[in-house]
Amino acid sequence: MSARARAARVQGTVRIVGAGLLGASIGHALTALGVDVALDDTSPAQLRLAVDYGAGRRAEADDEPSLVVVAVPPDVTSDVIERELARFPQAVVTDVASVKLEPLRALRDRGVDLTHYIGSHPLAGRERGGAISARADIFIGRPWVVCRDDETSTGDLAVVEALALDLGATPIEMSPEEHDRAVALVSHVPQLVASLLAGRFVEAPDGSLSLAGQGVRDTTRIAASAPELWVQILGANSAPVVDVLDELAADLATVADALRSPDAPGARRAVADTIRRGNEGVERLPGKHGQNRRFEQVVVMVDDTPGQLGRLFGELGELDVNVEDLRLEHSPGAQFGLAEISVVPRAVRRAVEGLQARGWKIASTTND
Amino acid sequence: MSARARAARVQGTVRIVGAGLLGASIGHALTALGVDVALDDTSPAQLRLAVDYGAGRRAEADDEPSLVVVAVPPDVTSDVIERELARFPQAVVTDVASVKLEPLRALRDRGVDLTHYIGSHPLAGRERGGAISARADIFIGRPWVVCRDDETSTGDLAVVEALALDLGATPIEMSPEEHDRAVALVSHVPQLVASLLAGRFVEAPDGSLSLAGQGVRDTTRIAASAPELWVQILGANSAPVVDVLDELAADLATVADALRSPDAPGARRAVADTIRRGNEGVERLPGKHGQNRRFEQVVVMVDDTPGQLGRLFGELGELDVNVEDLRLEHSPGAQFGLAEISVVPRAVRRAVEGLQARGWKIASTTND
Repeated sequence: MSARARAARVQGTVRIVGAGLLGASIGHALTALGVDVALDDTSPAQLRLAVDYGAGRRAEADDEPSLVVVAVPPDVTSDVIERELARFPQAVVTDVASVKLEPLRALRDRGVDLTHYIGSHPLAGRERGGAISARADIFIGRPWVVCRDDETSTGDLAVVEALALDLGATPIEMSPEEHDRAVALVSHVPQLVASLLAGRFVEAPDGSLSLAGQGVRDTTRIAASAPELWVQILGANSAPVVDVLDELAADLATVADALRSPDAPGARRAVADTIRRGNEGVERLPGKHGQNRRFEQVVVMVDDTPGQLGRLFGELGELDVNVEDLRLEHSPGAQFGLAEISVVPRAVRRAVEGLQARGWKIASTTND
Repeated sequence: MSARARAARVQGTVRIVGAGLLGASIGHALTALGVDVALDDTSPAQLRLAVDYGAGRRAEADDEPSLVVVAVPPDVTSDVIERELARFPQAVVTDVASVKLEPLRALRDRGVDLTHYIGSHPLAGRERGGAISARADIFIGRPWVVCRDDETSTGDLAVVEALALDLGATPIEMSPEEHDRAVALVSHVPQLVASLLAGRFVEAPDGSLSLAGQGVRDTTRIAASAPELWVQILGANSAPVVDVLDELAADLATVADALRSPDAPGARRAVADTIRRGNEGVERLPGKHGQNRRFEQVVVMVDDTPGQLGRLFGELGELDVNVEDLRLEHSPGAQFGLAEISVVPRAVRRAVEGLQARGWKIASTTND
């Protein structure tokens, strides 16, 4: 159950180049499994931070890694991959960059021997970057795309998949083209859409913006992302991004035209279709509404007085129910709030019956 | 402090037409203040539910309301306003519809005497509709737009502002035109953008969607909204919505063209400008990042074992610290989670020092 109890699948020394958020997080997770992690970074400060926080040891000149993980910014990824392949010809080299075709093309154009290179991309991250934000658990339950090709040996592929599995991620095989189209759709275009929408607020009257609610805040949350990294990512994946943008522009023109003549035949239907297709599309996203499908939710009414949540969680502890996640729906000034508790499915009945026996009101469960 | 302790500003009987989410929520809040609330609804079931849940009493034929609140669907709003003005010539009549110019135009076109009509719009709601989801506290801290005009008497205006204040909302005076442009920008276009983006997922390969993360889920969350209401809202506010959509389409074309020739002069800069303008725009939104600015956040490390949250909240209760909001950042399988606790500013030091004295690790506070 716990990570400490597991043995690592990866063997030997793992060298991580780039001790930022992803590199240091991989280091933390592997170190916790007892793996020898050798960290390298062009920034001495970043490297010291990652080592101090327990992400691994400093790389040494005589390291003989079995696996090299390149976790550097996109614009230097292919250079570092080329250097690491040349320096450690026996090692498998992978990278964690968020675009897969461009670095591969660059390496092929230079005639680099790519026998032991396997591109990969863990779909994990945090809003905050850097070694200081690194956490061993950011990969757990997340997809980890692995791009094999005809040159890839089964043994090398197994090494990269072992890395993903050791970190709790789910390896998914995709071609670089499939990967880049997928991230254009579910990551790069959503970023641009959020930025474009938020960009419309720059010149808006203050009064207009005072009417903003949770909906628009959610829709534009990622517009707060740093430009530097996104210019690199979007530039490196421009063709698939443009394809999706063009489709989106056509859809946008259709609904704008319908609203230009709202009483014309078919106009209402075009607007309704836009909203309905949105319903259908968002329904296809895994883990929609931010809920984790591995858990069931139990919603409990909680009086708004100090100590009530303490009593609730104390009694859940007595019932041996572990709270996997929790959201408190609560408005200041209200006399009660709703605590939405996520528990493993087998604990739902124990939680509901136990809490009710202790006088708690259950507002709903996922199974309702 | 509590709602029960305050005296109501509104005087006499308040008649509420439409006992859905907004109508019933207004009823709950006024009833809690001791106001006589007369509820009416064309649906007997909805009316019974609202009365049973304590949102007010059934309207009677001889009611003499001082204020009528029309809280019916947008497509019947102007009809109901006209009827109520004729039936209760001494009362102030307001509505809570989310578009303000169209119903006003319809009423003017019919030559209705609008002396005692003041349009308003509370920016409040929940994902779930209906009387059963009604809550007295949904207006607290939210803006409540009030549209006066030259005919509006100071006395009538004071009645509608008293209603907003009684419900804990902040009255904001705007013209119907200003209001409709503002909600086009911060509500109606964000809805369409989320729907259009999510609509692109309908025909995407399953594999692509498996790479979706929290960013795209947030960006498309409101795409789950019901089509019926949105077709009415967008149709009623089409001109301002089209204006924003056209601007957005132009911005989108600019960045798509830049990405079509990513190495052309100025292309990187155009992409960077898009992201940077997004940064600037999202920064202007009140309450950005979904955090409530009235509270400070304290982040506490919590071991992943049953009873730990119970101990934490029990000890916060002992410290007399009330938890106003809470988010648990937690990955299944990790050895610990982070509990982000929102407390009133004056409780931060008491919480931090008290918890540390009891052996808890504080990961950060808002003041860091």
